[in-house]
Amino acid sequence: MALATGNGPFPPTPPGTTSRMSRIRRLGTSLRFADVVIHGDTARWVEVAENTSLDAAGQIAQVLEQIDATLPSIGSDRTRILQVIVHLADLSDAATLDRLWDAWVPAGHLPVRARVQSGLGGNCLVEMVVTAAIEESASQPGHATESSH
Amino acid sequence: MALATGNGPFPPTPPGTTSRMSRIRRLGTSLRFADVVIHGDTARWVEVAENTSLDAAGQIAQVLEQIDATLPSIGSDRTRILQVIVHLADLSDAATLDRLWDAWVPAGHLPVRARVQSGLGGNCLVEMVVTAAIEESASQPGHATESSH
Amino acid sequence: MALATGNGPFPPTPPGTTSRMSRIRRLGTSLRFADVVIHGDTARWVEVAENTSLDAAGQIAQVLEQIDATLPSIGSDRTRILQVIVHLADLSDAATLDRLWDAWVPAGHLPVRARVQSGLGGNCLVEMVVTAAIEESASQPGHATESSH
Repeated sequence: MALATGNGPFPPTPPGTTSRMSRIRRLGTSLRFADVVIHGDTARWVEVAENTSLDAAGQIAQVLEQIDATLPSIGSDRTRILQVIVHLADLSDAATLDRLWDAWVPAGHLPVRARVQSGLGGNCLVEMVVTAAIEESASQPGHATESSH
Repeated sequence: MALATGNGPFPPTPPGTTSRMSRIRRLGTSLRFADVVIHGDTARWVEVAENTSLDAAGQIAQVLEQIDATLPSIGSDRTRILQVIVHLADLSDAATLDRLWDAWVPAGHLPVRARVQSGLGGNCLVEMVVTAAIEESASQPGHATESSH
Repeated sequence: MALATGNGPFPPTPPGTTSRMSRIRRLGTSLRFADVVIHGDTARWVEVAENTSLDAAGQIAQVLEQIDATLPSIGSDRTRILQVIVHLADLSDAATLDRLWDAWVPAGHLPVRARVQSGLGGNCLVEMVVTAAIEESASQPGHATESSH
């Protein structure tokens, strides 16, 4: 099992090799960032509560609902979430997070989770950075290409 | 090299295409989060020191030891770590982190690293979010599927 | 579509299966961390301004320039950025970030973005954790291996 590593510049691709590029798909209408970016069979996105006038419990519940709304739109579901990085504006909301989280995550399909306190700005009390697996369609246009440099 | 992107909803998979889904594997016995989640050949996990009564040097050393203990259990090792996001509760421990880190990372196989100060709660002084490569077994059940919608 | 998951130890790879390991490539000359780590067709790296005597606008502009400099060296470009986690030392620089960011990101190819306030240390005012897609050469040495345990 050869593992090629090194700190130098990358060698050129040898002639006749096959290049593969996973498809990139982006969802959303914002002009600042995508709602979701999918690369191959991995989706990444960031959720903050749409209604930041809610208290922490309300915002956390809403963020989890928003994740629930996003998952089917990308061909995923709660059992395919890989990682959630939870930023709380105030760690005193950690017990509230855990109570809502524990009722939400599916037993047997738990993601890894980090939970840290970060400044979030405005009235935002929670921000979650989500990574999830989706079903990848391997032969859609743009996914696999043959190159013969 | 066609790169398919767009902001609209995803088109349906054309008939006769091949779908691929990387296996998801989860390690751990917690009911709140997985110890490690592996998707395809990428593993993600979060480490905090098991003994948070230790000082910063003790917790950082313990987190690195815990990473060392996790790596072989998932078919990886220090040379395959891709990224470590280090959250320190107090940036005045940065020099301690660097001293222990520099002795730990393998020359020629360094991961990318971010180091930020975040609130961690309890007596937790360091939290590391780790991404590492593992060997993927491509033909295990569940990895590759054929679909003909 | 079988999705293999579980919390137990991993089963051994059955005899005769094919193992696949994506190549790991590392860029940089630091002895502490890599400048960029590429795994398969995904690149990860962390940028802070080389000149931390600059003000926030200067550091943010420089970080974006540094990302621009990194992208072609790894076979990527702005349209293939997947995710950016922005750590600001002071959220009062958020409007400055957004102004520079909005002029920089390519319409139709927006990454997901999180923006949080974290302690960064020294005079560092901004740190960006970047994930981007690159073109993967599938048949280079070390990428695909056959195993018959």
